[in-house]
Amino acid sequence: MNELNIDYILELIENRKFGILKNELSNLQPPDIALIFDELSEKDVIILFRLLPKELASDVFVEMESDKQQLLIEAFSDKELKEVVDELFMDDTVDIIDEMPANVAKRILKATDSKTRKMITQLLAYPDDSAGSIMTTEYIDLKKDMTVDMAFDRIRSIGFDAEEIYSCYVTDRYRNLLGIVSVKQLLLNSKETLISDIMDTNIISARTLDDKEEVANMFEHYDVLALPVVDKENRLVGIVTVDDAIDVMQEEATEDIEKMAAILPSEHTYFRTGVFETFRARIPWLLLLMISATFTGSIIANFEGKLSKFIALIAFIPMLMDTSGNSGSQSSVTVIRSISTGDIEFSDIFKVLWKEFRVAILCGVVLATVNALKLFFIDNMMFHRFDTGKELLEILVVCGTLLLTVMVAKIIGSMLPILAKKIGFDPAVMASPLITTIVDAVSLLIYFSLATVIIGV
Amino acid sequence: MNELNIDYILELIENRKFGILKNELSNLQPPDIALIFDELSEKDVIILFRLLPKELASDVFVEMESDKQQLLIEAFSDKELKEVVDELFMDDTVDIIDEMPANVAKRILKATDSKTRKMITQLLAYPDDSAGSIMTTEYIDLKKDMTVDMAFDRIRSIGFDAEEIYSCYVTDRYRNLLGIVSVKQLLLNSKETLISDIMDTNIISARTLDDKEEVANMFEHYDVLALPVVDKENRLVGIVTVDDAIDVMQEEATEDIEKMAAILPSEHTYFRTGVFETFRARIPWLLLLMISATFTGSIIANFEGKLSKFIALIAFIPMLMDTSGNSGSQSSVTVIRSISTGDIEFSDIFKVLWKEFRVAILCGVVLATVNALKLFFIDNMMFHRFDTGKELLEILVVCGTLLLTVMVAKIIGSMLPILAKKIGFDPAVMASPLITTIVDAVSLLIYFSLATVIIGV
Repeated sequence: MNELNIDYILELIENRKFGILKNELSNLQPPDIALIFDELSEKDVIILFRLLPKELASDVFVEMESDKQQLLIEAFSDKELKEVVDELFMDDTVDIIDEMPANVAKRILKATDSKTRKMITQLLAYPDDSAGSIMTTEYIDLKKDMTVDMAFDRIRSIGFDAEEIYSCYVTDRYRNLLGIVSVKQLLLNSKETLISDIMDTNIISARTLDDKEEVANMFEHYDVLALPVVDKENRLVGIVTVDDAIDVMQEEATEDIEKMAAILPSEHTYFRTGVFETFRARIPWLLLLMISATFTGSIIANFEGKLSKFIALIAFIPMLMDTSGNSGSQSSVTVIRSISTGDIEFSDIFKVLWKEFRVAILCGVVLATVNALKLFFIDNMMFHRFDTGKELLEILVVCGTLLLTVMVAKIIGSMLPILAKKIGFDPAVMASPLITTIVDAVSLLIYFSLATVIIGV
Repeated sequence: MNELNIDYILELIENRKFGILKNELSNLQPPDIALIFDELSEKDVIILFRLLPKELASDVFVEMESDKQQLLIEAFSDKELKEVVDELFMDDTVDIIDEMPANVAKRILKATDSKTRKMITQLLAYPDDSAGSIMTTEYIDLKKDMTVDMAFDRIRSIGFDAEEIYSCYVTDRYRNLLGIVSVKQLLLNSKETLISDIMDTNIISARTLDDKEEVANMFEHYDVLALPVVDKENRLVGIVTVDDAIDVMQEEATEDIEKMAAILPSEHTYFRTGVFETFRARIPWLLLLMISATFTGSIIANFEGKLSKFIALIAFIPMLMDTSGNSGSQSSVTVIRSISTGDIEFSDIFKVLWKEFRVAILCGVVLATVNALKLFFIDNMMFHRFDTGKELLEILVVCGTLLLTVMVAKIIGSMLPILAKKIGFDPAVMASPLITTIVDAVSLLIYFSLATVIIGV
């Protein structure tokens, strides 16, 4: 969807060219039409929506932002609302209700039949980050004594309402999941074949209360289009489809990235988040980190008396702080992402420690050496920056600090996320900003201690 | 796959209990069996692989790391190699060849028939980040004058070799893409229905040279299971399937996160990357940023003479540097992620600037106020930190710097990624570490300038 198109559509609306508009809209995909609705005034939203053919209207409705959905629901007659709701898939209805204020949610529920309403109420009860909260209850269920032909009949009779028909689930009378058969297998076998002969009994499934991020990772690992979700008694209660898994993956990646930058996760995209909302997501960590950084400052304050006699050491503080901060972030971010994708678990902690230790030595030695060469050959010999006769000792203090802080930074940076996860915190919070603040303080302590010992500041 | 299982399997291999082993393996999913191979010695890899039933063997082979694949290929007889390669999907074969040294790649090509070989050579020619590089050429093609029944016959005849059979592509004799019909639509229509009557002519497609990240984003936006890929002349040349799109999404998110932490992107997961490889990915940015940070240091060095008379100001440097760095990272990371997911484009630059400007004022004012209150009531009144009589002027310098640097940091942080993208650089490089280094220098300049003007340091 390029901008030119949106502008053209907006122009058509402005000039009330509804005939052309109707035609243009029918050539667009529902998610793109939903983008157009974002740009419209409240009045135009309602006008444009009523121009859409019924089936397309529901598809577009699902893709809209919740404020636009609410606007429409409030404008709908009961009959219109029922028409839209009838076309929705169960999981989409639940998502929409979840976002609406109580009175609007009540109206949507009233527009559904009693069976659907009961199902929706059950789905709404699952915790926000669980597999249950992203599953749909509309799927193709088969019995194991059916033939392929009977299975196709079953798909034809209920497939119209199901979101995903290509994985069929074979259950017994207690709804226990016995096997899975794909439409591909159905097509490649003869009509008389029994389902029990071709179903795959080697089942991968999720539980209703599993973390939805882990369920999304299963889609990546197993390359499936849908995953069955079972309850505590192993009964099939729903399925998660790949499109919802993709949404979870992208949301979780964005959330991790936000947390790594000391931002509270936001629910909406950049432009859909207001200025005040963005401010609220950013200020808590900024404040907390600012207060923490004053402790780093107080380390300097404690050395103030000594520093005034040896002011040249101060100029190295930014370089030491930045380098140790960057070293720590590299480790923490790598470990956090690996925890998210399931590559690192708590039991790997010593493997991680050992690897980071070795990487830290390599990085520390190279950084310290380059710095020493730079200080000695460029700063000292060319610019005569050191004029107190203590050049070599100073270089030793700076480079020794560098080596030690890079090592400490990488160890802290890699261990804190794993430990955080272990005690039930979100590892992503242990990312660059917090690590930097901790590591800054540590590097200054090391710096001043070395300076005291080596050159007796 | 939990560790207990892997340990149990390893034990079975060690004790040469091949009967039980064969049975256990057949209850596992191919990606989980591939994980077991990661833990095995070279000799055991070959033994275990030969225990797998033929069809399962190919499925497991695809999921292995390339070093294990190479090991196996080198151990295979020509016949064994042909058996495995015959079972592979086209896009997987291409991926494997891409990872192998020339002589191994040549052996794989030799094991394919001439038609497949020609196709593979074509696919290998697409650039690494293009849609062409992740597409497969095995798909279901239909003609528009077929009936539903004929379409099912066509699926039955070629479906066994196709990875994705649920979206069928209707082409004319020149391979121009005319429409798409899903197996769901085929199932829900009568046998005599003409394909031309039910195919969807409103086609979403990608081009061979499109960026694969953008193609992956299309899966999220349109909720599709596959996307057709067309060449410059609009002829259908292949399809991208949702599992490959998911892999691209996850890889790109990891890459963005790595770049944001000043790490060069790595191809493998944490434990599959060696210590030296990890070191090589981390050291370039650490070195570059260390050198850059010495410029920040030289700003301090330039003020050295003045600073020695006013040493109390030095203690605020870490807090000012950290807070401005954090403010800048928040903006840059938010903007970088939004560029990746397609929410921010270059044309939005002024919208972003205006939003960040307002957020920056809110953040800056709150941070400066909290700091002023802390300095005045806690540091000054309780600890009598300021004993020169210039308390209020000092507070003014510190808090004024805070306000100004937060604003500058957020503007720089949000603008640089957009500008980088515009001139063809990777926006993710303009993330926390680089922004922090730039912003550190700017904040010190502001700090010392304000100090000079206000209290005449």
